[in-house]
Amino acid sequence: VDAHALIDVHTHVVPASFPAYLGRHFDAPWPSTVPAQACHRHVMVSGKVYRTVSHQCWDCSVRIADMESQGVGRQVLSPMPELLSTWMAPEDGLALCGYLNEVIAAMVAEAPERFIGLGAVPLQDVGLAIRELDRAVHQLGLAGVEIGSNVNGTAIGDPSLLPFFEAAADWGAAIFVHALRPSGMDRLVGPPTLEQVVAFPGEIGLAGAALITGGTLARLPGLRLALSHGGGTLGALLPRMQHAWQHLPQVREALPIEPLQGARRMYVDDLVYDGPAIRRLLDVFGDDRVMVGSDYPFSIMDRDPAGRLSDLNLDEAVLQRLRHDNAERWLFTA
Amino acid sequence: VDAHALIDVHTHVVPASFPAYLGRHFDAPWPSTVPAQACHRHVMVSGKVYRTVSHQCWDCSVRIADMESQGVGRQVLSPMPELLSTWMAPEDGLALCGYLNEVIAAMVAEAPERFIGLGAVPLQDVGLAIRELDRAVHQLGLAGVEIGSNVNGTAIGDPSLLPFFEAAADWGAAIFVHALRPSGMDRLVGPPTLEQVVAFPGEIGLAGAALITGGTLARLPGLRLALSHGGGTLGALLPRMQHAWQHLPQVREALPIEPLQGARRMYVDDLVYDGPAIRRLLDVFGDDRVMVGSDYPFSIMDRDPAGRLSDLNLDEAVLQRLRHDNAERWLFTA
Repeated sequence: VDAHALIDVHTHVVPASFPAYLGRHFDAPWPSTVPAQACHRHVMVSGKVYRTVSHQCWDCSVRIADMESQGVGRQVLSPMPELLSTWMAPEDGLALCGYLNEVIAAMVAEAPERFIGLGAVPLQDVGLAIRELDRAVHQLGLAGVEIGSNVNGTAIGDPSLLPFFEAAADWGAAIFVHALRPSGMDRLVGPPTLEQVVAFPGEIGLAGAALITGGTLARLPGLRLALSHGGGTLGALLPRMQHAWQHLPQVREALPIEPLQGARRMYVDDLVYDGPAIRRLLDVFGDDRVMVGSDYPFSIMDRDPAGRLSDLNLDEAVLQRLRHDNAERWLFTA
Repeated sequence: VDAHALIDVHTHVVPASFPAYLGRHFDAPWPSTVPAQACHRHVMVSGKVYRTVSHQCWDCSVRIADMESQGVGRQVLSPMPELLSTWMAPEDGLALCGYLNEVIAAMVAEAPERFIGLGAVPLQDVGLAIRELDRAVHQLGLAGVEIGSNVNGTAIGDPSLLPFFEAAADWGAAIFVHALRPSGMDRLVGPPTLEQVVAFPGEIGLAGAALITGGTLARLPGLRLALSHGGGTLGALLPRMQHAWQHLPQVREALPIEPLQGARRMYVDDLVYDGPAIRRLLDVFGDDRVMVGSDYPFSIMDRDPAGRLSDLNLDEAVLQRLRHDNAERWLFTA
């Protein structure tokens, strides 16, 4: 693989199987898989099918064949977000995250020139999350972890989570914030999938805003953190936040750095399905902050992330930043 | 006033005083005002200061002087959104909305060449809301009404509200949807004003999305409806909604028209505080759908809405649409 080939930072993994639940909590929503149609398995949670997924989720050779056809050189692997399971008891979350981290590390070991691994931590218990982050990065060799955009409803910009982000910054672990269990569910009118389609972008936007207004990004300039889905609605919130910071004393006093400066300390993927919307990401976050993300292999995925970028007719140097350099910097800066 | 002068569609009114509460509900959050510093009054709700406002909120001559200095020809008057009071008992809501409508009609009567009135309806009771809409439009001569983005947590795209929108479409009443009591409050980290700064855009974006996915806009092509705050985050949601409509059968089957087509049946104001963000509104909604809005006279207002548009160096014909024609069409098309 060309060392400068395209890196897709937003791809997900589901293990083919899970160990039996060995915890002590009655009715813990521990996942399992059962066979479905050829090459597919149902992910079962609490006795119901959560999602039916294909072998693309766990089979490295299938993924690599898809990458070849997509023009993707490397994939960043992260768990299917629902598996982050912050709603479980902390010790169960630790057990599940530990297993996910081993599965992802094993996939990376199968094709280290193709895959970069992001693991999981039980963020419902900051101490345990830091412990598992340590193991994921220092023992299993993962580049960092994926976290949800909230922890059981608490915004990730809440000061209670600062010790976790401090550890990530200290250890140079990349953090991928993915929309999960979004706010605004009671405002949706339509099929259940609107959770992902309509509510996810607002949820990740609010997560980014809270990292700015809560001071996390101001305190930890070395934190390397990326938001899923192009930062969702954050780009649309920023001009208003910036205006409020300039004109409302109570906002200015509360925010140690201006909102736009905070936003530009983060990375975002380009999973916005639209050329002009990607251009807007470049304007808002800067062309050193935007990376390629596809949501592979789920049904909502962007099927041609490389082509979508090529169609923008960007400067070759800018294109190379988006295709490769920004991801490399986010994941691996010492 | 020049008949083609700039129309500011997003300005608010607070009456200088309210009648005493005459309802039968103990502890109803009925508003009142008490004197504050010179030219100001506190709006009191449930024994607390909700907001301290100036005579700009009720004094036509003060408003007209401000309009002269801003280059604004006409203002569309709508109630301070918190006064919409959908959380009150329906008969109390009807009484308060009726009073607001009379106050706003009286302000319009003072300077009809300067002011266009939007009233209020008790949307917590669809039957009463239709009754008051009838009175507001047909007896008081208002151009339409302002409504909140949700009714006590129910999205305004919910089918239960269709009869109200049908009446508005039948009577040619303009509807201004304003963010109110937003979702996502538990995701905010920072001062209380982040409700307006960070949560409002997501709330109005979800309201617009629900009007699309719930089918309201598909069923009522003649409905003339505008979203506050540039539609909030709706522009950021649309490419993802559009992608889902193209690729996910369950979304396509549920939506009678494609999301972008639904979006372009609405109008939006340009209250996004940023030239490139206004340009994005033009791309998303079309230059026949964007109007000037300032949030006058509240502290977060855009102080120079005319200048912000001029700075964009738009084509003169487009500029005239944004400054005047689109608002005229939204408000007054037969």
